[in-house]
Amino acid sequence: MATGVSVENINPKVLQCEYAVRGEVAIHAQRLQQQLQTQPGSLPFDEILYCNIGNPQSLGQKPITFFREVLALCDHPNLLEREEIKSLFSTDAIARAKKILSMIPGRATGAYSHSQGIKGLRDKIAAGIASRDGFPANADDIFLTNGASPGVHMMMQLLIRNNRDGIMCPIPQYSLYSASLALHGGSLVPYYLDESSGWGLEISKLKNQLEDARSKGITVRALVVINPGNPTGQILDEQQQYELVKFCKDEELVLLADEVYQENIYVTNKKINSFKKIARSMGYNGDDLQLVSLHSVSKGYYGECGKRGGYMEVTGFSTPVREQLYKIASVNLCSNTTGQILASLIMDPPKAGDASYDLYEEEKDSILKSLSRRAKAMESAFNSIDGITCNKTEGAMYLFPRIYLPQKAIEVARAVNKAPDVFYALRLLDTTGIVVTPGSGFGQVAGTWHVRCTILPQEEKIPSMISRFREFHEEFMAQYRD
Amino acid sequence: MATGVSVENINPKVLQCEYAVRGEVAIHAQRLQQQLQTQPGSLPFDEILYCNIGNPQSLGQKPITFFREVLALCDHPNLLEREEIKSLFSTDAIARAKKILSMIPGRATGAYSHSQGIKGLRDKIAAGIASRDGFPANADDIFLTNGASPGVHMMMQLLIRNNRDGIMCPIPQYSLYSASLALHGGSLVPYYLDESSGWGLEISKLKNQLEDARSKGITVRALVVINPGNPTGQILDEQQQYELVKFCKDEELVLLADEVYQENIYVTNKKINSFKKIARSMGYNGDDLQLVSLHSVSKGYYGECGKRGGYMEVTGFSTPVREQLYKIASVNLCSNTTGQILASLIMDPPKAGDASYDLYEEEKDSILKSLSRRAKAMESAFNSIDGITCNKTEGAMYLFPRIYLPQKAIEVARAVNKAPDVFYALRLLDTTGIVVTPGSGFGQVAGTWHVRCTILPQEEKIPSMISRFREFHEEFMAQYRD
Repeated sequence: MATGVSVENINPKVLQCEYAVRGEVAIHAQRLQQQLQTQPGSLPFDEILYCNIGNPQSLGQKPITFFREVLALCDHPNLLEREEIKSLFSTDAIARAKKILSMIPGRATGAYSHSQGIKGLRDKIAAGIASRDGFPANADDIFLTNGASPGVHMMMQLLIRNNRDGIMCPIPQYSLYSASLALHGGSLVPYYLDESSGWGLEISKLKNQLEDARSKGITVRALVVINPGNPTGQILDEQQQYELVKFCKDEELVLLADEVYQENIYVTNKKINSFKKIARSMGYNGDDLQLVSLHSVSKGYYGECGKRGGYMEVTGFSTPVREQLYKIASVNLCSNTTGQILASLIMDPPKAGDASYDLYEEEKDSILKSLSRRAKAMESAFNSIDGITCNKTEGAMYLFPRIYLPQKAIEVARAVNKAPDVFYALRLLDTTGIVVTPGSGFGQVAGTWHVRCTILPQEEKIPSMISRFREFHEEFMAQYRD
Repeated sequence: MATGVSVENINPKVLQCEYAVRGEVAIHAQRLQQQLQTQPGSLPFDEILYCNIGNPQSLGQKPITFFREVLALCDHPNLLEREEIKSLFSTDAIARAKKILSMIPGRATGAYSHSQGIKGLRDKIAAGIASRDGFPANADDIFLTNGASPGVHMMMQLLIRNNRDGIMCPIPQYSLYSASLALHGGSLVPYYLDESSGWGLEISKLKNQLEDARSKGITVRALVVINPGNPTGQILDEQQQYELVKFCKDEELVLLADEVYQENIYVTNKKINSFKKIARSMGYNGDDLQLVSLHSVSKGYYGECGKRGGYMEVTGFSTPVREQLYKIASVNLCSNTTGQILASLIMDPPKAGDASYDLYEEEKDSILKSLSRRAKAMESAFNSIDGITCNKTEGAMYLFPRIYLPQKAIEVARAVNKAPDVFYALRLLDTTGIVVTPGSGFGQVAGTWHVRCTILPQEEKIPSMISRFREFHEEFMAQYRD
């Protein structure tokens, strides 16, 4: 290999960054998958079951028909001039595609759009937000992005000057936040979710963490909240949301609200309120609170991860700051127009009376009900295994069971230089083909060990998956019993 | 506005970043466009003519039919089961869509792919590179990206540790490089292209600039070369390419080859050689040279800017460094699958004998011939205007005419705190509706002034555009004559 750039002289922030969701366990899974292809029968299982990442369509979830009809017509607008499409596409998909194309100068989906995204689509998204919240939203506040992740990076880029700038993040947290903070050279200021109260949060503890960080010379710039939680699956109750909003207002922190799972709710006694709705209902507007709300086409009932669509709604920032955000967006020109169109569709789906409505409702309902059944089945299965406890999954797409590892297992793991939960996850993978993400990638209270497991395997696969998991776990515990 | 984050306390690297292509002139153009809509007739022109950015489909260029057929079928695979599509889609587009879907686990274009992109598509791209160059290429070396820009950012993120790390960039250069360097906090080490010799470069001068930077304590890590040039439109001759490759090898610099305009060639006496082909034909392999080649679906004859597809081919880096690059790619999960599919199509278009071949060739040929005519028409028009000289556009999509501004104009511009070429471009816009990008956004020899103007206006609009430009220029020069 040529010698100029080596791992010894690259940017140390890159080296420090960890991204567990696609880390050691996931990479090992890819190797095993290749081995299964080249040497079938050489492993104690026939397939790799990816429960490490919220990627529904990779596990068989079908896309919403209406959305894909609109995409196909927007991709190839010549079709709209042909009679034959009437038997292939629903009338409202045809009408919607025409309407979307009319918002794009020259109907050119292959042109760079405005750096924030196509204005007409942002209008639709703003209308969708307003109708969801009952408070106005403005297209100028919307930045369309390639999934939600680039929005997070943009905000980190804007806020982080050096390692004395910090962002408060829940622990456990989705690894994107710690990874992005590492890449931008900022400090993660943790606030712990309480496992014993269903991953609840207490404002007094938040306040302590903030004071502690400040006493160490950290300028805390923002607070990340993920609702429903990732990897923890809890839904905040309204009172907690009020307190969080007031806390951010009083402490002058940007509230970075990761609301990408806003459609993934599996309990009837709680509902999702956007943080914008909460703030506005408290009478706080852009003069009181700097709020960034992130959403994505990757989750919900649509699960269109590969299309990389999403948006952030940005309120409470001065014009000069917004101009700087616009500049950051411009350096990448624009997000992909397919993802932009999808983002408008999820915020403006078929309505009662539309030709596609019944099919749309059926598809949506079937996916969400199935996710709910899977969440409950896997949660009770985990709780029935000795040495594992698992909080209720109220929303999102994950279980975060706690694994009570024996001391002997912890020592063996440390002897081979692995975090104990990584050691456990690798053994699980090697034995069963099940891929989970070790809890250490999300952060956890010292001395506790978890894995994140999605609720996404197809329903018919869950019983055998659970029994393989149980069998592995019992053997593992027997082997390392204290 | 809420007070936590203000322009005084954001990341200063963001403030320092400039991105002229979407800078002051482009933003002013958006305002004027809105004014034209809300108050028709209030400006001395009826439309804004965007010559500031290489965005062909926004100015009426049609997408390649075959590519869009394949995209539509991949977006909505249910269509493949219907008889009616035989009258709507070419047989090879149907076959290609099936083949692409067969490369994607579960045919799920809505799933996150491998962080580097779908393996089967990378195989096709590698085969396309091998067939273009006559030297092998490997799918593992390909990183699919949302356009070429994210590839540049990834490399900057990898290479730049602090402001004592530098990257050699041509001056004039495409503003992405200076913008990305500013955002990542590195130093731009310029090497000047010589306007009088058709934007040629001299290795001896390069060497001087390198020594000079090193003597100032800058660790120069990479050299950017853009071929064909942006904004300058020149094509390097083979000898210059050999010398550049040898220079990078000898000096242990990563060669960052921006080859996104490799299909945009308007002269018959030169051809495009990829830097990989040049390096391999010199006998240099991955042990000798660290080479990154960038390509995009946004340019060429396809011009699919809004789809955000592209790739970088990365050779000569050790496994640990590649693992770090993979991690950076993983933090954004993957690039959009529509762009990924398009990237495979441009590297594996219809072949002679395929059902779409004749139409494809006709569309491609018509676009490239028209671009060539436009380049020549605009170049000779600029050269016919007093006080403007313009080098030949051999490739890419831009003219970079030099404007000989009178001293009085320069003084007036400075008095209103504008760079003289920004002042000129704003006046041009206000008077004619023509949007160009000021040369200062790309860098230019001190005391010289340029604008970048694309060759993309539709042919029937060029005569009137040129006459408006000429009229404006003559009046401007008359007003400020020394």
